[in-house]
Amino acid sequence: MVDISAIIDHTLLKPTATYRDFKILCEQAVEHLFYSVCVPPYIVGSCKKALNGTQVKVCTVVGFPLGYNGYIGKIIEAKQAVKCGADEIDAVINISALKSKDFSYVEREILLLRKTTTNKILKIIVETAYLNEEEKNKIANIILNTGVDFLKTSTGFATTGAVVEDIKFFKSILKNDVKIKASGGISTYKQAKELIKAGASRLGTSKSLQIISQDE
Amino acid sequence: MVDISAIIDHTLLKPTATYRDFKILCEQAVEHLFYSVCVPPYIVGSCKKALNGTQVKVCTVVGFPLGYNGYIGKIIEAKQAVKCGADEIDAVINISALKSKDFSYVEREILLLRKTTTNKILKIIVETAYLNEEEKNKIANIILNTGVDFLKTSTGFATTGAVVEDIKFFKSILKNDVKIKASGGISTYKQAKELIKAGASRLGTSKSLQIISQDE
Repeated sequence: MVDISAIIDHTLLKPTATYRDFKILCEQAVEHLFYSVCVPPYIVGSCKKALNGTQVKVCTVVGFPLGYNGYIGKIIEAKQAVKCGADEIDAVINISALKSKDFSYVEREILLLRKTTTNKILKIIVETAYLNEEEKNKIANIILNTGVDFLKTSTGFATTGAVVEDIKFFKSILKNDVKIKASGGISTYKQAKELIKAGASRLGTSKSLQIISQDE
Repeated sequence: MVDISAIIDHTLLKPTATYRDFKILCEQAVEHLFYSVCVPPYIVGSCKKALNGTQVKVCTVVGFPLGYNGYIGKIIEAKQAVKCGADEIDAVINISALKSKDFSYVEREILLLRKTTTNKILKIIVETAYLNEEEKNKIANIILNTGVDFLKTSTGFATTGAVVEDIKFFKSILKNDVKIKASGGISTYKQAKELIKAGASRLGTSKSLQIISQDE
């Protein structure tokens, strides 16, 4: 079995979190050797500084959580995050454009984000809760051709989060070309193990301490 | 009594709305003479075009709905929206910074947004659902000194929306210097009337048709 701590993006994306909460998040990530902290864009610089000299990466979110920002706004947000020290960018697709079957818009935006984040890890959040089977298939195939690092299932702000069936489905399309980050509602060690078994190689969760405390 | 249609921002901010849904929203706004349509940043240009030759304004959202984007990201998003034809910008405060008592950060960001949107209407969303009495008082007083046009209560994505008591409280601080937009969960004519009576001079709602159908 993999070391679960080492693949967790230790996440705090509540709009009401304080500077103190983010400081504690960073301390926890160092203590438990989580892969990264996943934090709002505006606090990236502070977290990077707090994690200086450690191996913990800083991950942030772009176009989060609704995805319908203009593409220039998303690109600048990603660029600024990288400038402030972000190692990884988790960007939400334009769900509205996908639902409107404007696939070229969706793809172009992802390609622009890829270009903006060269040498950084780029994860594309598809928000599975809102997609039907056809849309899940379409977006996975779009992502397959964009050179991004991960497909990420969920923001944690929709009606549902990561489910095993979705991970299996995405894995069947993405194979080893694009990795999968399972996120949203992951709160137990058992659930984490199942998602990994289904094909996830990264987990996004705010329940990290709870999960690792259940490690057998 | 005021003409309610004329002060409604006819709102569609669901991440799953399609191009067709936005087109219908614009048609409804023209038919019922709503003040504006309130739509995601990426669709501003299309809506502006659809409303060409009418009096209906285009309103959009910035840093929406969580408010913790970097300030440069917010500014660029506002600037782009104006460039695409937005008449009004509804921007979310950095709730996290407010909760951390970093008031100068919150104020500086609002002032930068004001500078970016000269000659346009700027509304600052405070997301009352997440604020205690002290924070509501503080943010209203900050907003009072920034030259923005409106304080807006809610995004519609938090646990609660506009409530009469909040409108009355804000009105007691803002008087006639900053107007109030009530938003979030407004679904009946009775509710709309009460919010207006309490001091709101604009309403943000996706239930506009329902509300005006109940007009006595």
